[in-house]
Amino acid sequence: MLVVAALGGNALLRRGEPLTADAQRANIKVAAQSLADIVRAGHRLVITHGNGPQVGLLALQGAAYKPDEAYPLDVLGAETEGMIGYIIEQELENALGHDRPVATLLTQVLVDKDDPAFNAPTKFVGPVYDKEEAETRADAAGWQIAQDGDKWRRVVPSPKPLDIPDMRVIQLLLDQNVVLICAGGGGIPVLRRDDGSMIGVEAVIDKDAVSALLAQKLGANALLLLTDVDAIYRDFGKETAEPIHTLTIAEADTLDLPAGSMGPKLAAAGHFAESGGISGIGKLEDALAILQHTAGTSVVR
Amino acid sequence: MLVVAALGGNALLRRGEPLTADAQRANIKVAAQSLADIVRAGHRLVITHGNGPQVGLLALQGAAYKPDEAYPLDVLGAETEGMIGYIIEQELENALGHDRPVATLLTQVLVDKDDPAFNAPTKFVGPVYDKEEAETRADAAGWQIAQDGDKWRRVVPSPKPLDIPDMRVIQLLLDQNVVLICAGGGGIPVLRRDDGSMIGVEAVIDKDAVSALLAQKLGANALLLLTDVDAIYRDFGKETAEPIHTLTIAEADTLDLPAGSMGPKLAAAGHFAESGGISGIGKLEDALAILQHTAGTSVVR
Repeated sequence: MLVVAALGGNALLRRGEPLTADAQRANIKVAAQSLADIVRAGHRLVITHGNGPQVGLLALQGAAYKPDEAYPLDVLGAETEGMIGYIIEQELENALGHDRPVATLLTQVLVDKDDPAFNAPTKFVGPVYDKEEAETRADAAGWQIAQDGDKWRRVVPSPKPLDIPDMRVIQLLLDQNVVLICAGGGGIPVLRRDDGSMIGVEAVIDKDAVSALLAQKLGANALLLLTDVDAIYRDFGKETAEPIHTLTIAEADTLDLPAGSMGPKLAAAGHFAESGGISGIGKLEDALAILQHTAGTSVVR
Repeated sequence: MLVVAALGGNALLRRGEPLTADAQRANIKVAAQSLADIVRAGHRLVITHGNGPQVGLLALQGAAYKPDEAYPLDVLGAETEGMIGYIIEQELENALGHDRPVATLLTQVLVDKDDPAFNAPTKFVGPVYDKEEAETRADAAGWQIAQDGDKWRRVVPSPKPLDIPDMRVIQLLLDQNVVLICAGGGGIPVLRRDDGSMIGVEAVIDKDAVSALLAQKLGANALLLLTDVDAIYRDFGKETAEPIHTLTIAEADTLDLPAGSMGPKLAAAGHFAESGGISGIGKLEDALAILQHTAGTSVVR
């Protein structure tokens, strides 16, 4: 099978943990072991990943050094493709004993300059703060902020991914049996100008949305959205809460989901399931079990 | 012909210019036009680039935010492969009118843990400072510093590149006529542990050295080392100074070179020329003319 596995940025650099390279490597190591199981089971694999905490961290670092010379979000997104892609590649190569080629490709993703998301930021980036600190920082730095669970966080525009110009290169690497890491952080968001040229734009594309688009374009068999939650829950947060093993797209629409990233995950999973693939949502550690339908939540037509 | 072109990090983010994304993009745009000439002339092209100013900048940004959570140089190097690779790819795609695939591949490069360079840092990174400021910063941050022209700068270890584990992926992309950006910043430096696994190490590999290794492994016809100087000069800095059109490896050893990056360039050019290729050194703007031997300095056996 051809599998697209998306690693949650918030699962690689977790809320409450320090945003260090070591913390990130430790989480990625766990993910790499899990992804190696998929490769060893004989499947072809494309890995994508989020970058919410990481891209926000790089923005904070730049602002702390020289706020007037801060880098735009497309360039910071490209930096996170380097940072996270490298650690995933290295840990996966180590997990596979260096007997399979693993490659990381920088990936631009086309968005629409008129996407309404540019006027209504929703994508959480960087660390979480108490409300007061978030408001103080927002005033000082010109951020927009929103509530994320019981904390507050910076939000940035997250336009819809329209196209992946590098599809041909992605396809030819897969044809040669390369395990591929691409479209990190949802891809680097770019606009097409009237003259046909491309230019980066200040946004962070949702990595679940771009992973569904990629899986669909590749004709993948399965899309795995891996995070730090083991499944989608019915009655989440109540005493009657229970994990859902199989969910139809119609049922998904009736669920009362907790705030946060499950909404985009269910939307992406539903989108891909509609095109006939298998979508699974669950923990980083359970990649192969989710693919085999023995862990996580499967979203079906 | 198969051409490997190496872009100087100091030519992409120049001494005296602010270290901003805009300044970097403007310089890269000039380089992209020049590289597009090579592609349009019918040659296959692999592009590498330096990252001295950029990797030092990212280290400063990290230290300004939370010095205790600073990221190691291998991860920062990977970030610069993302940052610089993205801008080169985008500007080159624009210069080529999006009619040729251009891809950027993260690249690890193997070094020896016993390389003497780990005890004798020589690679300049980050901005230049007056001596006094450099000394103050070095004391505060634990840097080693060295004189770079009339200024001072942080230096980090620059071990010799031994191998490029991703050669197979690089070769298959070239076989498919992809214009490839790889080994940025000299590649991400990694060590092989006793158990065969790989791990990053705090260093910055010289991009000219890795470019020569790459050109040799690919059996490239030409290696172009592009910078902000138009040629190698005889009697540099004197009234009798004159650009050298063709230089033999034997003559190169007798030259009195200015301090800075010409030494590594000549070493890399000589190394590649010894294996039978054409090596050229000159300005970013002159890539095709240097290849055609009508600009810059050619280093021959």
